[in-house]
Amino acid sequence: MPEFAEVADGLQMPLAEAMRTQRAVRRLRVDPVDDETVLELLRLAVKAPTGSNAQGWEFMVVRSPDVKHQLARLNRQAWSLYRRFARSRARGDLGQARILAAVQWQADHFEDAPVIIVACLQGRGFPSNMGRTSHYGSIFPAVQNLLLAARALGLGAALTTLPLWSRTLARRTLGLPSNVTPCAVIPLGWPVGGGYGPTSRRPVEEVTHLDRYGNRAFLGLDGRVEPS
Amino acid sequence: MPEFAEVADGLQMPLAEAMRTQRAVRRLRVDPVDDETVLELLRLAVKAPTGSNAQGWEFMVVRSPDVKHQLARLNRQAWSLYRRFARSRARGDLGQARILAAVQWQADHFEDAPVIIVACLQGRGFPSNMGRTSHYGSIFPAVQNLLLAARALGLGAALTTLPLWSRTLARRTLGLPSNVTPCAVIPLGWPVGGGYGPTSRRPVEEVTHLDRYGNRAFLGLDGRVEPS
Repeated sequence: MPEFAEVADGLQMPLAEAMRTQRAVRRLRVDPVDDETVLELLRLAVKAPTGSNAQGWEFMVVRSPDVKHQLARLNRQAWSLYRRFARSRARGDLGQARILAAVQWQADHFEDAPVIIVACLQGRGFPSNMGRTSHYGSIFPAVQNLLLAARALGLGAALTTLPLWSRTLARRTLGLPSNVTPCAVIPLGWPVGGGYGPTSRRPVEEVTHLDRYGNRAFLGLDGRVEPS
Repeated sequence: MPEFAEVADGLQMPLAEAMRTQRAVRRLRVDPVDDETVLELLRLAVKAPTGSNAQGWEFMVVRSPDVKHQLARLNRQAWSLYRRFARSRARGDLGQARILAAVQWQADHFEDAPVIIVACLQGRGFPSNMGRTSHYGSIFPAVQNLLLAARALGLGAALTTLPLWSRTLARRTLGLPSNVTPCAVIPLGWPVGGGYGPTSRRPVEEVTHLDRYGNRAFLGLDGRVEPS
């Protein structure tokens, strides 16, 4: 498996290409990912903006089999409850069915990822809507940087919050103090199979409104757009 | 002012360079930003991951002087309350003082930005910690894509939540239905002055823990690290 120096050039990937080919890669090999690779992902993660430039993040790098096992158990607990709902919603939708199969694979192999990152934030945010928005807005841009950088290196990664269904249990698992909030879990590893590739999305013109909600001014005059 | 075709090559910027030189650019020229530029930013924004791939985003593109004026008023209301707190906290910190001066400039010129994006999300998220995390985790990665793409084009942008201090008033301003939540506001425009450039951050080794919180295993043996 490559060490960081062998894959570092990947970070020169054109920005638009990295974004257009980012997808959740959940099927991961057990082969090791070195510390330098993980630290470089984190160095790019912390370049993201935070409210008032507070930089209140803390990153857990989980390599211990015991801690991974506990996170895997928390993940399976949430997934066993959520699965039925997700499956009934996905019925007949091939794309969703494919995602669910990958999430199931991930649940079955969660502790086998060579490294699992848990992105945390100091504080709990003010208990208001703006406080909460500003709180989460100070960690998910960093998480997205981490995911994009992983994509550019060809390192499999996917964002999940399932293992955090109980903050109390997640804090206990990681030894987090009560003023540090776990926000996102990202298992990392070299992909099994193809890994990254182009994604499809609803055309932006359908979800973009000019000045007032409902004014979809960017749709073609006949209401049709080219898929983006 | 450039049209999209003239700046599109910027999106080929190496990923790591875009991240390392992203900063909040708040001093914006009044000169126009064309629709194609805005739509391309949104096309890259929606490449970001969302929980269950729900893609529940809605983007408001605000160009109307009247709507911009109302957002500017909401922004000034929140800023006038927050400013005193922020200033007292920033006392003696030159970096923070510089940020506050830029936020003040932004408050004074908010309605002059040629276009203001408001990133919204369908639904309110389940009223649980995991529900909220997953909710905000489904919009801020897209916002970060938008900010990185703006950086790559040389287009000034900065994330703020101040105009959203009252969701009721923000919804009324934008005509949003009650099941659409405004999450982030991004004024866009060509920069006044220098714009983007390298940023500094606390070394990641100080905020990275191996397996258990407090185990800063990536710090040098003497506890010192090179600034990253």
